[in-house]
Amino acid sequence: MRIGVLTAGGDCPGLNAVIRSVVHRAVVDRDDEVIGFEDGFKGLLEGRHRELDLNSVSGILARGGTILGSARLERDRLREACDNSEELMGRLGIDALIPIGGEGTLTAATMLSEAGLPVVGVPKTIDNDISATDRTFGFDTAVGVATEAMDRLKTTAESHQRVMVVEVMGRHAGWIALEAGMAGGAHGICLPERPFEIDDLCKMVEERFSRGKKFAVICVAEGARPAEGSMEYAKGEIDQYGHERFVGIGNRLATEMERRLGKEARPVILGHVQRGGTPTAYDRVLATRFGWHAVEAAHRGDFGMMTALRGTDIVMTPLADATRELKTVPQDRMDETEAVF
Amino acid sequence: MRIGVLTAGGDCPGLNAVIRSVVHRAVVDRDDEVIGFEDGFKGLLEGRHRELDLNSVSGILARGGTILGSARLERDRLREACDNSEELMGRLGIDALIPIGGEGTLTAATMLSEAGLPVVGVPKTIDNDISATDRTFGFDTAVGVATEAMDRLKTTAESHQRVMVVEVMGRHAGWIALEAGMAGGAHGICLPERPFEIDDLCKMVEERFSRGKKFAVICVAEGARPAEGSMEYAKGEIDQYGHERFVGIGNRLATEMERRLGKEARPVILGHVQRGGTPTAYDRVLATRFGWHAVEAAHRGDFGMMTALRGTDIVMTPLADATRELKTVPQDRMDETEAVF
Amino acid sequence: MRIGVLTAGGDCPGLNAVIRSVVHRAVVDRDDEVIGFEDGFKGLLEGRHRELDLNSVSGILARGGTILGSARLERDRLREACDNSEELMGRLGIDALIPIGGEGTLTAATMLSEAGLPVVGVPKTIDNDISATDRTFGFDTAVGVATEAMDRLKTTAESHQRVMVVEVMGRHAGWIALEAGMAGGAHGICLPERPFEIDDLCKMVEERFSRGKKFAVICVAEGARPAEGSMEYAKGEIDQYGHERFVGIGNRLATEMERRLGKEARPVILGHVQRGGTPTAYDRVLATRFGWHAVEAAHRGDFGMMTALRGTDIVMTPLADATRELKTVPQDRMDETEAVF
Amino acid sequence: MRIGVLTAGGDCPGLNAVIRSVVHRAVVDRDDEVIGFEDGFKGLLEGRHRELDLNSVSGILARGGTILGSARLERDRLREACDNSEELMGRLGIDALIPIGGEGTLTAATMLSEAGLPVVGVPKTIDNDISATDRTFGFDTAVGVATEAMDRLKTTAESHQRVMVVEVMGRHAGWIALEAGMAGGAHGICLPERPFEIDDLCKMVEERFSRGKKFAVICVAEGARPAEGSMEYAKGEIDQYGHERFVGIGNRLATEMERRLGKEARPVILGHVQRGGTPTAYDRVLATRFGWHAVEAAHRGDFGMMTALRGTDIVMTPLADATRELKTVPQDRMDETEAVF
Repeated sequence: MRIGVLTAGGDCPGLNAVIRSVVHRAVVDRDDEVIGFEDGFKGLLEGRHRELDLNSVSGILARGGTILGSARLERDRLREACDNSEELMGRLGIDALIPIGGEGTLTAATMLSEAGLPVVGVPKTIDNDISATDRTFGFDTAVGVATEAMDRLKTTAESHQRVMVVEVMGRHAGWIALEAGMAGGAHGICLPERPFEIDDLCKMVEERFSRGKKFAVICVAEGARPAEGSMEYAKGEIDQYGHERFVGIGNRLATEMERRLGKEARPVILGHVQRGGTPTAYDRVLATRFGWHAVEAAHRGDFGMMTALRGTDIVMTPLADATRELKTVPQDRMDETEAVF
Repeated sequence: MRIGVLTAGGDCPGLNAVIRSVVHRAVVDRDDEVIGFEDGFKGLLEGRHRELDLNSVSGILARGGTILGSARLERDRLREACDNSEELMGRLGIDALIPIGGEGTLTAATMLSEAGLPVVGVPKTIDNDISATDRTFGFDTAVGVATEAMDRLKTTAESHQRVMVVEVMGRHAGWIALEAGMAGGAHGICLPERPFEIDDLCKMVEERFSRGKKFAVICVAEGARPAEGSMEYAKGEIDQYGHERFVGIGNRLATEMERRLGKEARPVILGHVQRGGTPTAYDRVLATRFGWHAVEAAHRGDFGMMTALRGTDIVMTPLADATRELKTVPQDRMDETEAVF
Repeated sequence: MRIGVLTAGGDCPGLNAVIRSVVHRAVVDRDDEVIGFEDGFKGLLEGRHRELDLNSVSGILARGGTILGSARLERDRLREACDNSEELMGRLGIDALIPIGGEGTLTAATMLSEAGLPVVGVPKTIDNDISATDRTFGFDTAVGVATEAMDRLKTTAESHQRVMVVEVMGRHAGWIALEAGMAGGAHGICLPERPFEIDDLCKMVEERFSRGKKFAVICVAEGARPAEGSMEYAKGEIDQYGHERFVGIGNRLATEMERRLGKEARPVILGHVQRGGTPTAYDRVLATRFGWHAVEAAHRGDFGMMTALRGTDIVMTPLADATRELKTVPQDRMDETEAVF
Repeated sequence: MRIGVLTAGGDCPGLNAVIRSVVHRAVVDRDDEVIGFEDGFKGLLEGRHRELDLNSVSGILARGGTILGSARLERDRLREACDNSEELMGRLGIDALIPIGGEGTLTAATMLSEAGLPVVGVPKTIDNDISATDRTFGFDTAVGVATEAMDRLKTTAESHQRVMVVEVMGRHAGWIALEAGMAGGAHGICLPERPFEIDDLCKMVEERFSRGKKFAVICVAEGARPAEGSMEYAKGEIDQYGHERFVGIGNRLATEMERRLGKEARPVILGHVQRGGTPTAYDRVLATRFGWHAVEAAHRGDFGMMTALRGTDIVMTPLADATRELKTVPQDRMDETEAVF
């Protein structure tokens, strides 16, 4: 069998682990050929690929990034290719395609699959917001990085009697904020799923100070928003190029809490450190299993499907289902901690 | 409600996180009283306890060990206490008991429960070998520590063209060896679940050397055993006190492989570093959720049960089921990597 | 002997290690009494202190922050106290005072010493910019945190063909940027000590892209500045409260490089994570040695001095010398890497 | 200029950082050619080498091990080569040789230098026992790994009221034990430099238990020895092959303390994890500076010398001096902590 593999979308710890696993399973155990397309779907359409053997994937298991690169592709070019899918298949010369990527990638994968290509998807996102899988690799690493940061910030907050506002990733789903907040012992957690009242946050801080705990750490997802009318948005942060760069919710919330509480509040925007670098053991295992099962699915002819974690098992689930709706934090998970506002 | 909590058995990262979570949920949200028994069931029988309020659990979320201590108790003393369970209950003055522990502890908890005590168990073991829960806290930390060690050892093995044999914990179940082996990219993994042929391991190493990869890392569970006749056991390692200390499978396997292969082989016995210290974010979240749900179960009167992870949910499962049989690595998990021997 | 100890100024990993070491040396070995003043000089003047025995410092060696707290004090109040130094000494009832702190603290310590108080200083700053000592504790931890972040960002930059601009601490001295930049393999390093030409930075990036290395990581100290005329400063970032919050050099540089290069550039502002949390082994050892030698100096009557690292030795150096001028990165250290711009 | 570089002796975090730095300085800044000999002096004599350009050293700064490999060479073969040094020089075709290694390597380097080869040495050893340099790279990483292990073991020791005996590297010099012991807060530290009385260790443990601290952590260098008559050595640990494998001082001390104290004592032998894997930021900076200065020395014709750290400066020091005697822990460093026995 000749299997093509590609990575698309943002960086995510574990991408290389999937690639390595696909090669190990396919080449060593199954006697397949594996080729890797460069820069995601772009390389696929442009025919840029290289053969992947055992040596090509040696030493990459623990390495961040992707040896295949990743780039954005306009949806139109892909649609066009789908319209000529037979020509594309002929040109690619592969029996199965394993695209590894997030929501956008899986949507593209679905298009290709519906156009007749033999696709087995592997989901990835540090945000953990893909339906149909209990977890995605990259998420555990992101939570780990954010938690370590909160551990560090807590002692500073305590020594200096400050409020620390830590902004973590999560535009539409608050999984990282929820789990890093719980693991880091945040006193307040703000999620995109539930608009927060800044008054409640301030009351919590004041209650802490009044019983002698003169500090607080707030973990806020970048997509979290104050409830209507709860917080006057800082105005005028439009930069010279006309967009609102660099003044996200973390900065705003710190500014606003400092103003209201009359206590020092400092923002920390963790940013990209959450999405790169060496994956945790958990993410390496999950990524490795996904790669293995993707090859098996290809051999079974299980196309139009994607790998998913269900409990402790890896199962196959329809590609289309996976992207139908975002997996957000449900109410019962929020209930499990008094820190969610 | 007045809730008693205790920790028993070996150290396990996340114990303090459970205690803290029980106190947060019970005291803050539920207006309960929580008392902590010292040194496990020993302190329970001896009436050694202290009240746990918010201050007692401040700052312990990320700390290893257990603020309540842990000690072994002879089963007979416990049995005796069960025979007088009414007297015991009167003396304890609690409405619910939350013991946090491994197989032994949960068996003891079952005894107490059957004797009529209102028990809600919380399972813990770094070995991940308790049935009825997908994972236990402590396991992720153990795998993380072992994986980091393997990352370090790999470069040494490679630079010096050596075989490294890393012995990890797991007397009866090979979960740590399996996952740390996969995450650390071990070339060979030996589990208690499947006797290994030392010839096969040697063949794998020779095959690697012959294709230019002049090193290998073997991850072996402490409970792994060679197949009958596969490896003459080193003899005479009985120490002066008459027991076989310090010469476990890791040391033996390294000695034997060096002798057979004529290549340097070095053992590394990770030992206790796997079971102590700060828990990973994953383990902190799991431990925190277990604590929260244990309090809820107590309030619902859901006794004789224990918290368990099923997929992404925390559910309650009968205590007795949990310890009926050990959860070992099933065949299909071994099949997912070519490294298991 | 009765020794007073206090911590002042910003958080710095290793503060607790000094306190612990003072107590160990003084109480255990020397049979002294040690009292700790709360919230720095503020607690000193207000007489807020508590006795520190072995138990008070148990388990704090690896903990970030300071168990004594830290707060800012108006210089005037201190000056006033110096004018009545005899009254102050009588009130304090101590034979030696060990203030642990940065430039501001050591200046205050010099004032107190000149007013006749028996002061032995211990320097601390994550910025490593205090003259007269080769290194200060906290610096190694800060560099370690920044380096780990750069390790993570590098793979993301590479996978996505981006420029990453990492802003690290260092308002007046570029030690963190220099060492984290070298350790993290930054392609460009910008220091407060040398105004940089943005053209040169852009040229370097373009040269990298042109030889196939389609990414770059820039490590910039928060106090770094473009050479006169080299970079039009972004305008209009004044926030609603009238100050230039949240738009430091990191954000500006990323914006400007993206504009000039036509390539994606992303800023990451590491911020407070660099100054808190558990200290590295190096910082723990240095802090412990400082504490030990401060007690010895007190016993020798070596007042008006401060501990300092010279080579591998801890020596005593006049307090006044230490703060006379800032220790900045000298030319020959910049020459040691081609990455400094 | 044509510069040869090689790595010899045991693994040591930072080797790759030196190689990278040599290439960066020589190729980028100086327009030199650099060739790397494989497997240390063995590859040198056998003429196995490859050119090293910017691409060859891309991404290796943070990687453990050595891309050039390392192997032992019989001293006789080297001596022979020295007798024909002109022939050797002709064959090598290099203008300078930069061997990176420990005591053995530097002795060999001295031989080559005395035979007329243009040698600039770079010292490396995780043991930090080379005279003439304040520190060697690799040491900080080793201490860091050992300290993290002690952090983990401490909580286990405390929860289970145990004595933990941690054996760290250091056959002839106790630097790792001293610094990891101080950083990890060991209650006892045993060094090769000073025979210890096991009675004193036991007394310390008993004193701790009697004041309620029911645990202890002992950090023992592998080369530490009990004072004459202080501890009956365990007998009969000779294994089937006639050597005393696997029963070092750590195991013995734990066995003996358990016997004497009647308390559980457990050994942990850290072993090879201390000498491999990614280097700390400190070690990366030191290694990078060493590489840079070695190239400069070569250009100045400063042969027969080796790079060394003195205070904050890198200086050149005669190769022969460096290996004249081992740098052991001096009395005044032992005096700085009450924990050394």
